[in-house]
Amino acid sequence: MIIKAKVAVELLRQHDNILILTHMNPDGDTLGCGFGLCRGLQQLGKNARVVNSDAILPKFSYMCEDMDVTFFKEEFIVAVDIATPKLLGKSLSIYAEQVDLCIDHHGSNTDYATCTLLDDTAGAACEIIYEILCELGVKIDKKIADCLYTGVSTDTGCFKYANATSRTYHIGANLIDFGANSAEINRIMFDTKTKTYARLERMALDTLHLYCDERCAIMKITDKMYKESGSNETETDALASIPRMIENVVVGITIKEKEDGTCKASVRSRDGFNASELCSSLGGGGHVQAAACSFNVGMEKAEKMLLTQVQAMLDKEKK
Amino acid sequence: MIIKAKVAVELLRQHDNILILTHMNPDGDTLGCGFGLCRGLQQLGKNARVVNSDAILPKFSYMCEDMDVTFFKEEFIVAVDIATPKLLGKSLSIYAEQVDLCIDHHGSNTDYATCTLLDDTAGAACEIIYEILCELGVKIDKKIADCLYTGVSTDTGCFKYANATSRTYHIGANLIDFGANSAEINRIMFDTKTKTYARLERMALDTLHLYCDERCAIMKITDKMYKESGSNETETDALASIPRMIENVVVGITIKEKEDGTCKASVRSRDGFNASELCSSLGGGGHVQAAACSFNVGMEKAEKMLLTQVQAMLDKEKK
Repeated sequence: MIIKAKVAVELLRQHDNILILTHMNPDGDTLGCGFGLCRGLQQLGKNARVVNSDAILPKFSYMCEDMDVTFFKEEFIVAVDIATPKLLGKSLSIYAEQVDLCIDHHGSNTDYATCTLLDDTAGAACEIIYEILCELGVKIDKKIADCLYTGVSTDTGCFKYANATSRTYHIGANLIDFGANSAEINRIMFDTKTKTYARLERMALDTLHLYCDERCAIMKITDKMYKESGSNETETDALASIPRMIENVVVGITIKEKEDGTCKASVRSRDGFNASELCSSLGGGGHVQAAACSFNVGMEKAEKMLLTQVQAMLDKEKK
Repeated sequence: MIIKAKVAVELLRQHDNILILTHMNPDGDTLGCGFGLCRGLQQLGKNARVVNSDAILPKFSYMCEDMDVTFFKEEFIVAVDIATPKLLGKSLSIYAEQVDLCIDHHGSNTDYATCTLLDDTAGAACEIIYEILCELGVKIDKKIADCLYTGVSTDTGCFKYANATSRTYHIGANLIDFGANSAEINRIMFDTKTKTYARLERMALDTLHLYCDERCAIMKITDKMYKESGSNETETDALASIPRMIENVVVGITIKEKEDGTCKASVRSRDGFNASELCSSLGGGGHVQAAACSFNVGMEKAEKMLLTQVQAMLDKEKK
């Protein structure tokens, strides 16, 4: 059932032993929501703890440092930034039918919880958590501010994308006033590369080529490159955005080879080129500017299939 | 003479034929100040125009499109974001002694104008211009908002660095509400690479090496790379930030070879490593986290000199 913010605040106020679930492969937003909310509820004297189905990357560890961890029998379960029960991941799937309150900003939310506070105008779910904590009367301290700022910044590409609205910016401002270490958080999230990632990126850049009158850029990452660089999937999300950065390119594609020789393509587009349409035509899906699809064939064949489709879409556009 | 914002507003209110000077090699902040202020003054029925000593890069052209350009005899000269008369550049140097009002955010401002409004707590000079325009009663329209947003975003690395304060974020929020096309401006400024730059970056990355227990990273750009990539100095500022991005690196150095075989080093640091101290010891200077120095020797010798000094500074730190 979709509920209003007021009702969500009331539900949180009424319960004392609260378990908070974050989504699998946890990112800055789900962790910021989880630990920010948890710290806020603890400040109000409640028992609260966060659980994750996957390990937290070391770069996010400051969010859970020095947390009070008490054990208690949960009486109320909150899911944060989780659009569907599938995203709970394997070890949290036992809670799929038991979520009392879901707080989310994905338009695709399946309304699986008893109560769902959904605001798809929020750039980050942490924006909603910020407003709820304020409503609950929580004093936003430095640690809560660091958690929430992390979510707001990482989900909007450091306030770069269209999902960063004036509300996002005002909340960012307030979190800085409450002590968020914005510059250091942004350095860790946006200006830090592991040696292995830097090595892989260099190899990947060597494969970057332009097609279709330079309106399409493709970059290919082979399994051999993964092995030679020592990098792995957990740190390579940023690669997908590289091909579209080239001037005049409207569709940038990153093809990653899997160990079994098949591959996956991540597509980023702009200027009206529909990435979702491209990927859907090849069995995948996603958003207008960011989509993906998997192939049962090798990289060279996949590249040809993608290029044929891209060329057809660009030709249609011209007409 | 240092003046208060109120006085600056009064001076602008009293004059009708206003010439606005921007600094040499104009960046997003000086241009945003210039065109934003100019459009605001024109809205109030005044004559105003912007002059630059160097060409405006095509990526900034949207700021001056469709501007009313009327010719008039200037009676009041305003310099924006210009810390010293030297930065007026060659063709505007004739105004060095004639600036009536300077509006700036550089702590190093030499107070060369008759009146100087200096606020070094502003992340971008455009923040000051925004407040002045509001005070003047200008209605911030979409075009003014685009100009000012450009300055605020580019001078703070898209709200990433410590100079982006809560004031910066609140102003960013207001400019979005006034219609600034934040996502597209940020895409152009931060997510677009020319083909020539992308080519040079790839070559440069191949030279990236770690030294001093991996706490120092050095990248070298030869004159040959410039020539082979077709890139040039106007688009290579971003290279300097790359070496420091590697995990655990506290000092990142980019050495650029000049045509005559000598070279220049750009230093970026963090975690207390003083880039300014390093560069000063080699005849250069700058800020704690960003400094530069020039050499009369080739790149290999310069690299050795830099490494000796870096090692000595790291050793001293340990003690």
